[in-house]
Amino acid sequence: MFIGVDVGGTHMRAALVDARQTVLASRKVATQAELGPEQVSRRLAELCRELMRTAGDKGGHVSAIGLGVAGRIDPAQGRVLFSPNLSTMNGCPFAFELREQTRVPVYMENDANVFGLGEQWLRSERGPDNWLGVTLGTGVGGCLILGGRLWSGDHLGFSAEIGHTIVDPAGPECLCGLRGCLEAHSSARALVQGVAAHIARGDLTDGPLFELFSAGMLTAEAVYQSAKQGNALALKLFERMGWALGLAIGNAFSLLGIGRAIIGGGVSAGWDLFIDPLHKSLREHCSMLGPEEMIVMLSERPNEAALLGAARLAQLMAGVEE
Amino acid sequence: MFIGVDVGGTHMRAALVDARQTVLASRKVATQAELGPEQVSRRLAELCRELMRTAGDKGGHVSAIGLGVAGRIDPAQGRVLFSPNLSTMNGCPFAFELREQTRVPVYMENDANVFGLGEQWLRSERGPDNWLGVTLGTGVGGCLILGGRLWSGDHLGFSAEIGHTIVDPAGPECLCGLRGCLEAHSSARALVQGVAAHIARGDLTDGPLFELFSAGMLTAEAVYQSAKQGNALALKLFERMGWALGLAIGNAFSLLGIGRAIIGGGVSAGWDLFIDPLHKSLREHCSMLGPEEMIVMLSERPNEAALLGAARLAQLMAGVEE
Repeated sequence: MFIGVDVGGTHMRAALVDARQTVLASRKVATQAELGPEQVSRRLAELCRELMRTAGDKGGHVSAIGLGVAGRIDPAQGRVLFSPNLSTMNGCPFAFELREQTRVPVYMENDANVFGLGEQWLRSERGPDNWLGVTLGTGVGGCLILGGRLWSGDHLGFSAEIGHTIVDPAGPECLCGLRGCLEAHSSARALVQGVAAHIARGDLTDGPLFELFSAGMLTAEAVYQSAKQGNALALKLFERMGWALGLAIGNAFSLLGIGRAIIGGGVSAGWDLFIDPLHKSLREHCSMLGPEEMIVMLSERPNEAALLGAARLAQLMAGVEE
Repeated sequence: MFIGVDVGGTHMRAALVDARQTVLASRKVATQAELGPEQVSRRLAELCRELMRTAGDKGGHVSAIGLGVAGRIDPAQGRVLFSPNLSTMNGCPFAFELREQTRVPVYMENDANVFGLGEQWLRSERGPDNWLGVTLGTGVGGCLILGGRLWSGDHLGFSAEIGHTIVDPAGPECLCGLRGCLEAHSSARALVQGVAAHIARGDLTDGPLFELFSAGMLTAEAVYQSAKQGNALALKLFERMGWALGLAIGNAFSLLGIGRAIIGGGVSAGWDLFIDPLHKSLREHCSMLGPEEMIVMLSERPNEAALLGAARLAQLMAGVEE
C-alpha cells in the first residue's frame, strides 16, 4: 500500500491507496501554511501515521509516501523552492522531515505533475499520448504528458506552469508578483479576488456576495452557488475564468502542436459555468486548429486524480529504488 | 550534395550544400506569392535546376531537395495546409510539383522547423537538449527541440507556432485573423504595419518613414536604419518587438520548464535594438525562473541556418528512404 498526499494552498489531503487504484481511507485537513512549515509538517506526519495504522489494521503496510506540493520544488532534495500559494513553505525540506517523522521513504513532486501521473494511471493505455493538464484549485497548476510520459523540462523544479503564463498583460495582479497570469483569472482565489475588486471599486455594496466577503467567509464555492442563482457578477467571473483558460490553452496548443487538454482540481466542479466561455475563447485564440481538433476534457476523477497520482509516484519511485 | 530551399513570405532562397555544411552556391528571388502557386512553383523549379547544373559542374549530383515553407503543412503529402504569409499557396501540393519538375526526391517541413534542424546541425553535439527556436522574418515562426530532437506534437502539420500565441488580447490584428499574436508585434510586417498605423491615426505626417511608406517602399530594414538614426517611432517599434518576444518566450519557458531560446531569421539582424527590451520583458513576465536561468541566444548563422536545415532535412529523409 502507498500513501498519496496533496498539499494545496487551502487543504492537505492524504489517502491510503492500493496497487489497484482503490482508495482504502482518506483524510483532509486545512493546510494553514500561515502557521509555518514546522506546524504543517507535524500535522501532515500525524495524518500519515494515522493512515499507516489503518494500513496495519487491514493487514498491510505502507511502502512509501508520495507528496504533491503546489509550486516549484526540488524532487531530488524533497524541498520547496518557490510556492506562491504556500509562501511560508519556501525553502522547507518537506520530504526529508516527513521521512524523519514516519520512517518511510517519501517522494515529492509538483501537485499538478502528480495529477498528471494520476490521470495517466486512471486512463491506463486509453489516454492520448500528448496532453496538457490544468488543475484548478486555490491556484492554477499544470502538467504536460508528452509521448506518454510526464515532461520535466530542464529539471528546474517546475514544468507546465500554465498558471503563470500571462493571458493579459493589463490583467489583475497575481500572487507570484506578476500581472495578468492565468492564475489571476481562473483560480479559486481569482473568484474571491474578483468580488473583492468590485467591492473595492464601490461597484458592489450589498447582497449575499458582499455580506459573505465582509464577514471574511467568501469562498469559490459560494461564488459558484451565487452564479447558479443567476448573480451577474458571479456569472461574469466564471466567464472570465473560461475566457482566460481558453486563451492560455489555445496558446499552449499553438506552441506544442497538440490538441488535447484535461482539466482537474477542486474548482473544476464549476465546469458547467466555465466550459462554454472556454470553448468560445479557444476558437477565438487558436488560429492553428479547427474547433473539432481541440478537445478539452474533464478529469476522470477531478477530486482524486492528484491523490492517486501522489500514491502512484510513491509506487513508481519505490519500485525504481528497490 | 543536397539543395535546401527556404520559402518565406517575401523571398525564396535556395542553396547547394554538401555534407560538411558548406554552402557551395546559393540563389535568392522574390516569392511573389500573389502571382499564384503555379508561378511560384515554376520559378522555384528553375532555381533548383540551376543549382543541379552547378552541382554537375562541380562533379557532384543532387540527391534530394529539402523545402522549408512558412505555415502549417502536411510533410507526408508535401502540401501547404494553411499559411498566413503565403495564403495563395494554401492547398498547394508544392513538394509533389517540385519533384515532378526536377525528378529529384523532395521533402517538406515548416520553415521554422528546418531552422531548428539547421541550428542543431551547426551546433552538432554542443547545443542544449531542450530549446525554443524563434525565427523573425516576414512573419514569426518557431520550433521546439525537446530531448535533442525536433518536436512535432500530434503531427497536425504544425508545432511551436509561437508567432500565433497571443501576447496581448487588446493588441494589433494579425494576418491569421486573430488579434494580439506575437507575429503582429515582432515580425518585419509588424514593423511596417506599426508605421502604417501611426500614419492612419494621423500621428505621423512627414519625415523619411512617412515618405517611404507613402511611396509603398517601406521595409523592416528601413525602419531599422531609421531607429539607428534615433527616430523615436522606429525605436518604439523595436522596443515593442522585444517586449512581445520577452512575454511570449517567458510564457513558453513557464509552460515547458526550460530556459533556453535561440533566435534566427532575417529580422534577427535587429538584435541590438530589441535584445535589451526582450531581456527586460522576460524578467517581468516569467516568475518561475531567475534572470540568470534564462538564456536567449542569437543563431550561429541567422541567415543560413534555415537553408542549411532544409538541406539537412533532405539528407536525413533521403537517408531514411535509402
